[in-house]
Amino acid sequence: MRVTVEQASLARALSQTTRVVAPQNTLPVLSGVELTAQGQSLHLYATDLTTALEADVPAEVSEPGHIVLPAGTLTDLIQRLPTALVDIAAETSAQAVIRYGRNQATIHGFAEDRLPEFAHLPRNAAVAVTIPGHVLAEVARQVLFACARDEARPILKGVAMELGEGRLVFAATDGSRLSQVWYAVPDHLEAPRQWVWPAKAVTEASRLTAGLDTVTLWMSPHVVQLETAGFRLTSRLLEGQYPEYQRVIPQQYVAECRVELSALRGAVERVNLIAQKDRSASLRIVHEPGMLELGTVSQDIGHAREVVECQSTGQPLDLLFNPHFIADVLKSLSSAEIVVEFAGTQSPARFREVGGSTYQHILLPLRQLV
Amino acid sequence: MRVTVEQASLARALSQTTRVVAPQNTLPVLSGVELTAQGQSLHLYATDLTTALEADVPAEVSEPGHIVLPAGTLTDLIQRLPTALVDIAAETSAQAVIRYGRNQATIHGFAEDRLPEFAHLPRNAAVAVTIPGHVLAEVARQVLFACARDEARPILKGVAMELGEGRLVFAATDGSRLSQVWYAVPDHLEAPRQWVWPAKAVTEASRLTAGLDTVTLWMSPHVVQLETAGFRLTSRLLEGQYPEYQRVIPQQYVAECRVELSALRGAVERVNLIAQKDRSASLRIVHEPGMLELGTVSQDIGHAREVVECQSTGQPLDLLFNPHFIADVLKSLSSAEIVVEFAGTQSPARFREVGGSTYQHILLPLRQLV
Repeated sequence: MRVTVEQASLARALSQTTRVVAPQNTLPVLSGVELTAQGQSLHLYATDLTTALEADVPAEVSEPGHIVLPAGTLTDLIQRLPTALVDIAAETSAQAVIRYGRNQATIHGFAEDRLPEFAHLPRNAAVAVTIPGHVLAEVARQVLFACARDEARPILKGVAMELGEGRLVFAATDGSRLSQVWYAVPDHLEAPRQWVWPAKAVTEASRLTAGLDTVTLWMSPHVVQLETAGFRLTSRLLEGQYPEYQRVIPQQYVAECRVELSALRGAVERVNLIAQKDRSASLRIVHEPGMLELGTVSQDIGHAREVVECQSTGQPLDLLFNPHFIADVLKSLSSAEIVVEFAGTQSPARFREVGGSTYQHILLPLRQLV
Repeated sequence: MRVTVEQASLARALSQTTRVVAPQNTLPVLSGVELTAQGQSLHLYATDLTTALEADVPAEVSEPGHIVLPAGTLTDLIQRLPTALVDIAAETSAQAVIRYGRNQATIHGFAEDRLPEFAHLPRNAAVAVTIPGHVLAEVARQVLFACARDEARPILKGVAMELGEGRLVFAATDGSRLSQVWYAVPDHLEAPRQWVWPAKAVTEASRLTAGLDTVTLWMSPHVVQLETAGFRLTSRLLEGQYPEYQRVIPQQYVAECRVELSALRGAVERVNLIAQKDRSASLRIVHEPGMLELGTVSQDIGHAREVVECQSTGQPLDLLFNPHFIADVLKSLSSAEIVVEFAGTQSPARFREVGGSTYQHILLPLRQLV
């Protein structure tokens, strides 16, 4: 293999591609990136066996071939090269010589000169949907944090995407909270179908699509794929039945508060200074007409109480929440004013933005024995 | 105790003062900050028993008194308060009530209402030297990194300061490298005396004096102290005999290279990508007339070779260095061009800036068996 490529293009492609490489691998070659020189491009490929990223960099190929090189070392080196052009040559899979100007470095390759092949997605059998470029970034910011972290119910570690009846819905739940955002897709009036993305695929997809006008997603029953300028992301979908989360969203609320987001955030941050340092402390939210009172009591650290004014209707309520979960939902909101709705002391509360947003977060209060 | 203080002043004073609090303490109360309301100020005091920081914040004291509160929680809370004024009240050492506007938080205090007292420095028996405000920041950047990290020779964990014969010298060495900077102090023509600062005191002193025109240091045989607007830093000095490091500085060199710092830094960064990932790899520097060649060979990762042009005189040389130490010294230099001098294959090399700088770094090459 022998190619000449632009340093800047290769550095950019490598830094994206090698992001999917898992930090620790049982299979050593998975810490590598596969370089294939063919036609007029250098093809990069990295995978953790769940998600794969491929990139194509325009190249002058003087000898076609392929090699797998350690992803971290190669990326770090290429990013630091001072020359406009880089020459990469490999006679065998044992090593590649990187030449830049009159200097050079030699990097040992893996014995295997190919990474394991990844699931293919037959486009003609796939469902396609085209969405604005900002959608996946919003999903990453507003929905992803509600995924489960533990392995108790593996399906909850993913983000559920539902397409049909004119809507594209993304949702995540860990069993005690639910984040959901939806977009109108007038071309898709068929019966809804569902795919569950692994969290990592959402993160990488949001990076690849930031700043784009539109992006097309391709879904087969087991694989999702998207392509943007020069990059192709492919991910296996999570297998299993995603819970019917729509049923937990309250249809009626007994109190509604419209409150300034920055004021509520500041108060929660201060009260949480005490609540979050104590594993057993919870955040208490009391609704009285025209105000939300936030409080916490920690045996070890102390206690705090803050009052935030709001425009409210409905009945007074006294609820306990997980302080981390309240902080999370306030981070996911961005309108100047938000609406908090309560459905009773044993029922979930709803947080949503004021204006045209189609994002909502549903949060269960903590149970109180007495 | 009861005081009213400006939130901004208290937040600034606390964030500086509580920096000396050690993250883990065998004596729990040392994770606290002592607040003393007296006269027209609130006095803050924190210590790790080696270094102490005190601050005074103008205050309206309605009831004198003192309390020790957890440094981290108090600082985090005060920094986040939205009001211009803060009221702190403590009836006993058990808890303090922090009132801001109509909201409040209560923080539990320590059973002890005082921190251990720290070494006093009798000013009339102390040596004083006044230096420009930038000096300690330079010492922190150029000298501190050469301190020993391990406990083998505890005295080498400090920075030696020598005053006398018209010079103030700061130096640190870990046994294989030496960083030294000196300043003219025409008022001090007496015989040189030496004090060894703990590394933490240098770090905190450099923060407190950044941006000041001048600062006065007070030294007794066992304690060093400095005062800046509102803050007083006091530190015990390290006890023991600091090695006579002047003797290791070569008096004669067999080769001198003048080289562009950014070019040398870039080359070392790239070669070090391979050298630093391999614990056993070293950085090879070869001097030939007009050039420095940098190289490394790692059994596991690969090898690299770079040539940097220089203006040089003297004989050709071939030396091995610790790659981390070469990276460190290049970080400590800032002139556009630097001078590297070699004194032979078994003797230390010297790195210095071009221009009026009085900073130099002496670095032993690695021994080569064969």
